[in-house]
Parts: sequence; C-alpha cells; structure tokens
Amino acid sequence: MARYQIIFSYDGTGFVGSQRQAGSRTVQKELESALRSVGWTGRSILLAGRTDAGVHASGQVAAADLAWAHSPADLLRALNANLPEDMAVSAARIVPDSFHPRFDATSRCYRYRVYAAPERNPLRDRFAWRVWPMPETGALQSAAQELIGRHDFAAFGSALRAGGSTLRSVSSSSWTANDDEWTFEVRADAFLYRMVRRMTYVQIAVGQGRLSAEAIRSALAGQGRLPAGLAPACGLTLVEVTYPPLDDLT
Amino acid sequence: MARYQIIFSYDGTGFVGSQRQAGSRTVQKELESALRSVGWTGRSILLAGRTDAGVHASGQVAAADLAWAHSPADLLRALNANLPEDMAVSAARIVPDSFHPRFDATSRCYRYRVYAAPERNPLRDRFAWRVWPMPETGALQSAAQELIGRHDFAAFGSALRAGGSTLRSVSSSSWTANDDEWTFEVRADAFLYRMVRRMTYVQIAVGQGRLSAEAIRSALAGQGRLPAGLAPACGLTLVEVTYPPLDDLT
Repeated sequence: MARYQIIFSYDGTGFVGSQRQAGSRTVQKELESALRSVGWTGRSILLAGRTDAGVHASGQVAAADLAWAHSPADLLRALNANLPEDMAVSAARIVPDSFHPRFDATSRCYRYRVYAAPERNPLRDRFAWRVWPMPETGALQSAAQELIGRHDFAAFGSALRAGGSTLRSVSSSSWTANDDEWTFEVRADAFLYRMVRRMTYVQIAVGQGRLSAEAIRSALAGQGRLPAGLAPACGLTLVEVTYPPLDDLT
Repeated sequence: MARYQIIFSYDGTGFVGSQRQAGSRTVQKELESALRSVGWTGRSILLAGRTDAGVHASGQVAAADLAWAHSPADLLRALNANLPEDMAVSAARIVPDSFHPRFDATSRCYRYRVYAAPERNPLRDRFAWRVWPMPETGALQSAAQELIGRHDFAAFGSALRAGGSTLRSVSSSSWTANDDEWTFEVRADAFLYRMVRRMTYVQIAVGQGRLSAEAIRSALAGQGRLPAGLAPACGLTLVEVTYPPLDDLT
C-alpha cells in the first residue's frame, strides 16, 4: 500500500461539482469509481480543492492509498481506461504517506477565459464567458494589478467555514489578450469561495469602463462596495496546485 | 417574402449530421425549427454543404424564404433566442431570390485541429484530434504543399453521386503550429465526401514519419496507395463558404 498523488483534468460541464454528493455526478465520485476498478478499497479520496458545478480543471490533485503492483505509468493508463470521456489523469506518482493535497498545497493557479462578441458562439461558450462590449486590455491589466498582495478579500468571496479568515495572498494576477479573447491568470496561497469568478466579474466591469480600478483598491481597504455579480462557471479552470519539494513532506 | 442568407455555427458533438434525417437531431432540423418560430412556413431550407456527425461549423450557410417585417439584425437575435445552446447565427441578410448556398458557392474553407499528447485531454478532445508521437511541422507543411492544385482526389474521398467527378481544385493548404497544437487549413472549390479528414489522416502519417510527402504526390497522380484511415470528426470545422459578389447572382 502506498499513497499516490494523482493529477487530473476534467471538462466541468457535465458535473454538479468536484466533491461527493449523494445522487449527483461529481468529479470525486467518478475518480473513486475508476480507482475502485483498479483495486482501491478506501472510503474517500482527498482533493486539493473543490470546484463548483461547470468549473473545469487541467491540474486538479487527488491523493489515494492504493495497493498497486505495477508502475505509476501503468496506473495512469489503467485509470484513464476506466474514467469517462470528460475526465483524464495526466500524472500519477507515489508520495509520502503524510501527503495531503489540500493542506500541503502552497499555491493554486486559476485561469479565466473571456471572449468579446455581440452574439453567442457555440464553439466557444463551453470554455469561455462571452462579454460585450469589448473590454479594454489596459484597464483589465490595471485592475489585475490591484489584486496582487496580501489583502482581506471579503469583497471577493466568503470563507468556506463561518467566521473563517478572508485574508489571502495573491502572488500574481494578470490578463493576456489574444484577438477577441482575454485570459485572466491568478495565483494565490488559497482562494475564497467563488473568489476568481468575483474577481473576473469586477475586472470586466473595469475593462468595460463601468468601474474604476481604484474602486478595487478601496474595496480591498474595506471602503466602498463593488458591483454584485459573478462570472459564469464555464470560463474558469483550475490549472495548477503547487507543493513544497516532496522530501519536506516525509 | 425575401430570401435570407443565414451564416451560422454549431458544436457538432450533439448532432448526427447537418442534413435532415427522420427521427434524428440534425443541424438542419434545429435551424428549421427556429425559423418556424419566427414565421417561416417553407418545406426545407437550403444548406451550403453537409457536415458529418460530430463535425463543427463556424461558417455554415443556409438560405430560407421568409416574410419578416423587421431588420435582418432583429432576425438574427430572434433566431438565436430560439436556437439550442450548441447552435448560433452569426449573420443574416437579404439576398437575391436566386441565391443558392450550395450551387453558388465558389470556395469552401475547413480547419482541422490536432494536438499531440501521450494521454487524452478532456479539455481539448471535443474540438481536436489527439495524436502521438508528436508530428514534425516541416513534414506536415511539405505534405500540405502536395495537395495544392487541380487534382483527381479519388485517393482522398468519394463523390457523393456514384460516377461523379473526383476532380477538385485546392487553392490553399497549410499547417500552422502553436506549442503542442497544429491546425490544418484548406480551401477548395468543393470537397469530396470526407476529403479533409482523409487529408488530415494521411498528412499526420507524413508528420510522424510513417509516410513520405512524395507518396501523396504519387497518389494524386494515380500511382500507389495511401494508408487507409480517417481523422475523427471532432477536429474538423467548416469555417467559411465564399460567394461571388451578390450582384452577380441576380
């Protein structure tokens, strides 16, 4: 028996979320079912973070204790053969028994994709949020700058536990533009519930000239209110969770 | 009553194809149903070209005769309000009554997307074909060059009518590389049945070093055989159909 770190991706469209819920199709349930088909007998896997219904992942991380006689590469292939089409494992390796994908994580990185068009586009709507009018790239970048640093992000989300801290450290936050498409990439030690979708919604308001970047600064200082709203789940992808070198975990 | 040219897009995943078939979900049926909800009483719309099950379009073209009292822009919005999520109209305009989206077309342009990875990726598999090992860009480009010109493309597809000509004129054919992704773009006066998917399959064989670009030249000259096979539908998108200036159609 060894603990395996499993990095995996999913198209979130067909899931009600990442965490196990009775009677619903979740990412956790599907991965547990694939693990069971390769001999896993555990009660519950561990996940790095929860993602809401419709949110995608290219770098979600799980841990499972498994008696597996073959190589981790064989495990990866066996899991992929047993996972549904909208999920796939991209890496599997043995880690120290103490490894916990959530508590050991040192940072998370998310991407949010936006495209600008007056009418919806069925080839893009699955993985991006359509906005109109077109946001201004410079304004988006100014907004993203305001988010960097250690702040009380209460205006951007809530702690999962009642009374939990809303202090978070954002280490990078930026937009890249490509034709009529913009991608927001943000990294932090951890995120509040729906924080990236709130950040995106507010920044698009800045990009479209309906809000000033200074309003973000004020809100982070506890002054003034930001427009209520949430960018849709479809544009969001959890791309990476980082850990200290594994030697530190033993 | 006027004839409208309707340019529209769809995610082909949920369709058994473009053309009307009894009891199946097709692109034509869905567009006709949306048209009926805005007052269309015709028997059948006209389509520029058929696409197979799973093939996408960002520039499919239809024609319908419609008594519509408002602007074409209003028609576009009304149709989009009545179309399912995986279809959308991007342009609508009045054209001469003689306009036929298939017979008047002067060229069609398709794109085929490929990505290279050892394992499947649920965030990409809907709109691209996964290949492995990685193809070599220079070899792909050499292969694409061989396809340009007026040739008998019998080795790459079949005429829709038995005994129909397999001569076609390819005006451009090229690959662009971007990280681990390659896009084949090809334009011709018209295409044989499954011709772009055959072209892609054969070129990937060249890109992966299993076939020489000269084998394509020989096959087009009626000498030698090409490996049998078809790139999957998911990577293919009909991106544009062109017409002469509309004054010529009246």
